[in-house]
Amino acid sequence: MLKGELDSQGLFLGIDGGGSKCKAILVDKHNNVLGTGISGPGNPLHGFEQATNSIEESAKLALTDAGIDVSLLEKISAGVGLAGVNLPVLFEQMNNWQHPFKDMYLATDLLIACLGAHGGEDGAVMITGTGSCGFVYVDGQSHIVGAHGFPHGDKGSGAWIGLQAAKQVLLSLDGLVESTILTQSLLSHLDAKDAIEMVEAIAAKPAAFYAKMAGLVFEAANKHDAIAQAIIEEGADYISRVARKLLAKNPPRISLIGGLTPLLTPWLDQDIQDKLTTPEFPPEMGSVIFGRQQAV
Amino acid sequence: MLKGELDSQGLFLGIDGGGSKCKAILVDKHNNVLGTGISGPGNPLHGFEQATNSIEESAKLALTDAGIDVSLLEKISAGVGLAGVNLPVLFEQMNNWQHPFKDMYLATDLLIACLGAHGGEDGAVMITGTGSCGFVYVDGQSHIVGAHGFPHGDKGSGAWIGLQAAKQVLLSLDGLVESTILTQSLLSHLDAKDAIEMVEAIAAKPAAFYAKMAGLVFEAANKHDAIAQAIIEEGADYISRVARKLLAKNPPRISLIGGLTPLLTPWLDQDIQDKLTTPEFPPEMGSVIFGRQQAV
Repeated sequence: MLKGELDSQGLFLGIDGGGSKCKAILVDKHNNVLGTGISGPGNPLHGFEQATNSIEESAKLALTDAGIDVSLLEKISAGVGLAGVNLPVLFEQMNNWQHPFKDMYLATDLLIACLGAHGGEDGAVMITGTGSCGFVYVDGQSHIVGAHGFPHGDKGSGAWIGLQAAKQVLLSLDGLVESTILTQSLLSHLDAKDAIEMVEAIAAKPAAFYAKMAGLVFEAANKHDAIAQAIIEEGADYISRVARKLLAKNPPRISLIGGLTPLLTPWLDQDIQDKLTTPEFPPEMGSVIFGRQQAV
Repeated sequence: MLKGELDSQGLFLGIDGGGSKCKAILVDKHNNVLGTGISGPGNPLHGFEQATNSIEESAKLALTDAGIDVSLLEKISAGVGLAGVNLPVLFEQMNNWQHPFKDMYLATDLLIACLGAHGGEDGAVMITGTGSCGFVYVDGQSHIVGAHGFPHGDKGSGAWIGLQAAKQVLLSLDGLVESTILTQSLLSHLDAKDAIEMVEAIAAKPAAFYAKMAGLVFEAANKHDAIAQAIIEEGADYISRVARKLLAKNPPRISLIGGLTPLLTPWLDQDIQDKLTTPEFPPEMGSVIFGRQQAV
């Protein structure tokens, strides 16, 4: 492909660098997805080298997937959304990266998620996956609620739900709260027969480990397990309160996104559920939208 | 001092190897303390080498403090209480240590704390310092409640209180719960001016870091700060429930020990407060008592 052809196609890369994986899409001028690529962790909070490698790899995979030679990467601009670049030091470090793109437009993971969910228009998102947070973008102004991390923040997230469940199961094994189906469910999941083995299995584990237990807690809650229900209700109440905080900024739309969305939505306050809009695009398309806005 | 003199004095070492420091006492045949020594961490869970070095160093310091040449260490037996030696693998490793004593008698930190508190008689203890747990020893049978660690267990401990407070302060900075005097108190303690700086200060910190915030939470609670009171009440309720669980084993005495004792005691259920007995001796004397029992 010649440079002129490339330009006329209006190709653009959209990249979403997360803590566990980095996703890239290559789109044409109509934002049709021509190719996708997924690589390792792309979060500069956990290392510049790994993040930049993942970003470049995901982009090359997307080009290859689209049948475009990776040598043309330098002719294509990229919007890149990354956690951590709200911190000036990380923004600067990433922005000084000798990146392989034509141009690189850097944004926070929250902004690209929000722009993606609302097709580039103003709006708000609550994100609940391994972590949790709220973000609203109206009239060029953004506002964050939460996003403080684990175990001190991220209430209502998968990691928070998993940790709350582990705490309750340990209390139940000590006979200090009732034992419910959640007790056996978590012990089986952890391949532990008692509290000592359970503690061995969970000690010093990261958020992603706890988040893997969240599904079991929803399962138990849906079977009317009292302890699981109390955990989910507390987490959902927090997300509902985050939503109210975001709605106070009058966003035209609000969406719940992230891995827990289908499980958590039915537990939110009814008036919040009624206001939720289906997200239009994933975060990596938000990166494309952001990049194109900046490139103008 | 000649060996005969040493024997006639009935000298004995008592050692309490904890996660932050190792304490040793040298006692005469009447258990009068002749010398004390304090060294670094003595918990084999965090490293065999460091633990054994600390144990030996604390013992030598105690001998020096008593005016006894450290070369006589090999003539003196020691009772040694250590966290973690309830795990068979650590017990065996510590027991195979080429220790510098005449004989070494190894027990868990919980057993020596309980034996110390009750002068070698049956009894129960709740321990609330950086961590928390309950232990009862009746008719040669012991039973543990809690002791699961941080952040998944150790409810009512200093670390738990500090973490709960940090969570609430972050919620208050997001405007999701009321802001109370605790908010400013914790921000000042952490030298942070907002949530971002606070998260930077607390992220990935160990239990001991959070435990340092517990004093501020009690201070706020005693000034009727609603959020601080709710945290302390929940923690105290847990310790009261642990006490009831231990009392079900009919121990003749029950004590609250550990760094939080004076702060937490007034918050326990009144009937539990009424049952508390003042501990007779510290854990290192429990090690002496245990060692002498075993040496018979």
